[in-house]
Amino acid sequence: MRAVDIIRKKRESIELSREEINFLVEGATHDRIPDYQIAAWLMAVLWRGMTRAELAALTEAMLHSGSVLDWSSLPAPKVDKHSTGGVGDKTSLVIAPVLAAAGLYVPMISGRGLGHSGGTLDKLEAIPGFNVNLKLDEFRRVMEKCRCGLIGQTPEIAPADKKLYALRDVTATVESPYLICASIMSKKMAEGIDALVLDVKTGVGAFMKKQADAEYLAELMVETGTRMGKKVVALITDMNQPLGRKVGNSLEIEECIEVMNGAGPADLRELCIELSAWMFLLGGKSKSIADGRAMAAEMIASGRARDTFREIIRLQGGDPGVVDDPHRLPQARHEARLPAPVGGFITAIQCEQVGVASMLLGGGREKKEDQIDPAVGLIVEKRIGERVKQGETLCTVRYNLDSRLGHSMDLLARSFEIGPQQPSAAPLVKKVIGDGGRP
Amino acid sequence: MRAVDIIRKKRESIELSREEINFLVEGATHDRIPDYQIAAWLMAVLWRGMTRAELAALTEAMLHSGSVLDWSSLPAPKVDKHSTGGVGDKTSLVIAPVLAAAGLYVPMISGRGLGHSGGTLDKLEAIPGFNVNLKLDEFRRVMEKCRCGLIGQTPEIAPADKKLYALRDVTATVESPYLICASIMSKKMAEGIDALVLDVKTGVGAFMKKQADAEYLAELMVETGTRMGKKVVALITDMNQPLGRKVGNSLEIEECIEVMNGAGPADLRELCIELSAWMFLLGGKSKSIADGRAMAAEMIASGRARDTFREIIRLQGGDPGVVDDPHRLPQARHEARLPAPVGGFITAIQCEQVGVASMLLGGGREKKEDQIDPAVGLIVEKRIGERVKQGETLCTVRYNLDSRLGHSMDLLARSFEIGPQQPSAAPLVKKVIGDGGRP
Repeated sequence: MRAVDIIRKKRESIELSREEINFLVEGATHDRIPDYQIAAWLMAVLWRGMTRAELAALTEAMLHSGSVLDWSSLPAPKVDKHSTGGVGDKTSLVIAPVLAAAGLYVPMISGRGLGHSGGTLDKLEAIPGFNVNLKLDEFRRVMEKCRCGLIGQTPEIAPADKKLYALRDVTATVESPYLICASIMSKKMAEGIDALVLDVKTGVGAFMKKQADAEYLAELMVETGTRMGKKVVALITDMNQPLGRKVGNSLEIEECIEVMNGAGPADLRELCIELSAWMFLLGGKSKSIADGRAMAAEMIASGRARDTFREIIRLQGGDPGVVDDPHRLPQARHEARLPAPVGGFITAIQCEQVGVASMLLGGGREKKEDQIDPAVGLIVEKRIGERVKQGETLCTVRYNLDSRLGHSMDLLARSFEIGPQQPSAAPLVKKVIGDGGRP
Repeated sequence: MRAVDIIRKKRESIELSREEINFLVEGATHDRIPDYQIAAWLMAVLWRGMTRAELAALTEAMLHSGSVLDWSSLPAPKVDKHSTGGVGDKTSLVIAPVLAAAGLYVPMISGRGLGHSGGTLDKLEAIPGFNVNLKLDEFRRVMEKCRCGLIGQTPEIAPADKKLYALRDVTATVESPYLICASIMSKKMAEGIDALVLDVKTGVGAFMKKQADAEYLAELMVETGTRMGKKVVALITDMNQPLGRKVGNSLEIEECIEVMNGAGPADLRELCIELSAWMFLLGGKSKSIADGRAMAAEMIASGRARDTFREIIRLQGGDPGVVDDPHRLPQARHEARLPAPVGGFITAIQCEQVGVASMLLGGGREKKEDQIDPAVGLIVEKRIGERVKQGETLCTVRYNLDSRLGHSMDLLARSFEIGPQQPSAAPLVKKVIGDGGRP
């Protein structure tokens, strides 16, 4: 078998066999096939797409390039959620404790933020001492103790994905829905879970600006997961404005604690409950979505989610005191406010720009090597549909370095659109793809 | 400027600027841009194609990645021809002496064979002692003495092409007409010529099986060369059967000598005269194609082409005695014949298979590293349209190793199609693209 022949087949839209895909993925993982051949193949995939059989083979080959976690000794189903990423997208930090508090296991392996979108690991690291770099045996101990752990990708998990992702990033081949699907699903399946709920974002702040693209990716992921014998469902959710009001690492932890305290912004709370409800259903904990919603609300109202969150933090080396006193999270030294230039209704928010504004403050990474400042970020004081008076604050900015403020404020000033008419409210969950194997 | 952004633009069919193309080509040449990014860009070019402006910029960037030969001290125009390659395609070896004998300069930089097609350098090396690896100053001395030299690509000539070609070869991106055009034209323009005649082959034995593809490539090359201020014309010629009767390195030298002796197969002689006539016209040596044909015929009839060929061989270290005694060329030890299974007319010859059969005997390379046996090859005894009796020889095979004969004979047996009706004759020159800047 020769890589060049496999590239040629893909280029000519001829379906690759499972053996050919395994050959490529193993060759890439073990550096037996040079990067330039993998790169040419990736571009050919972007061009020609993949059949469902090819996609399943690719996902499985990437999954089996490393270890698949085995939780068979644990007595309840293992579930997880994955979001395709957005601005202020912090639901994992609420959902994981909610699910674990109710008795499900949540072995959550997350990523870091890049560009305008945040990452769960960066948010967790805002908690003083929190260690996301657990070894797999430490992860297992945390899981056994509190049914949930939150870590980063280890070298054992889908090394082929690590290799392919690095190449995609520098060869402009990130955007293929097939490659995105295989990357996400191989990592999630490596967690050894029984069920997965996907939060596929769409809108100006999401990677998929068009809902049709989000739905297509969601269908690919649901079908791929289902073929692999897992219960999978995808929610297409709105990312036309930041989720919740707070963007930035400390700030987002703070907002999650608000939700776990029964408060917090309605949209964030709603999405946490909705995603949890699906996870309860798929994990066999509830008989319906309505039951699942009630169970999630109960975990919050009773304080059990908050207790579990405190326990996770403690087990992963962090300061559990932040849950009761969020001021123990890193705080920025300065605050600035963006006043409304005119009065009216907020009609749109350039959500991606808001994410970039937070990144520019130091809250995110422009390049992979960049250091994050956990304290900085911003608070969206007025959301779409809300009324604002001239001069009222649209957005509060928390910052440390004066030099970083200007560009960020400029971007924010161009992000809020104000008009005379109140826009109609858009639903947060736009569509559900798949039934997660419901009878 | 970042390579990844340039790849993305090409992927999205956005025209690249001259600066962006220069950045890529220079980066590739000097290993400042990694191979995997160049490979992804090559596949994106195969996908999206190139505009004429991009193609001109690419060709010029590749040309200027190395030296452009300067023959301004020589008193007559410099001309060359290039063939896209086929089976038994040996016209260069006749044309170069014909043109040089008539007073034009022919600084011919040629390539090697790969797969089913032969290469001028391999044929020349069948002549004992012939050195195709001249340094540029040696090449210049040969040119000054006999107006013609025949060498291989030197490190100074279009190094970007060498780099890109090597990558294309292993990433299944050879076939893009834009990349083929830039590769051919950058090397030919580096010869410092005033005029170029392109022999673009089409048919079952050519790289372009379809005439439309051959014409498209021809148009690209004519336009690119014309943009660069050169006189360029392309002849679309038939490659549905081997050109002439002999295939293999010694055998092809032998057949060229036959033509220079006023004999040889009619089709080979006709194409040599036709291509020479266009080169005379473009080089300003004749006023019409008819005059050019007469001049070429005269160079052969007078023996002056043969004298010049002898002189070229002598100056490049070869044994000029082969011109008068072709048996001094390497001879194979064994001969086998393929008899016609039935009588009738030859209706078709699977020309590519004939080329592969010669390669399998050792006459060509399957892989770049393979060694060539100059002595082996085959003689097509019956060509399309010729009548054959049952048992008469279709093809004579000259070989050295018994182990290589079987597969080759099998292929040949499947290459000759015999039917009851004589097919109508196809013209050798199917079309002329461009007028070479004729007034």
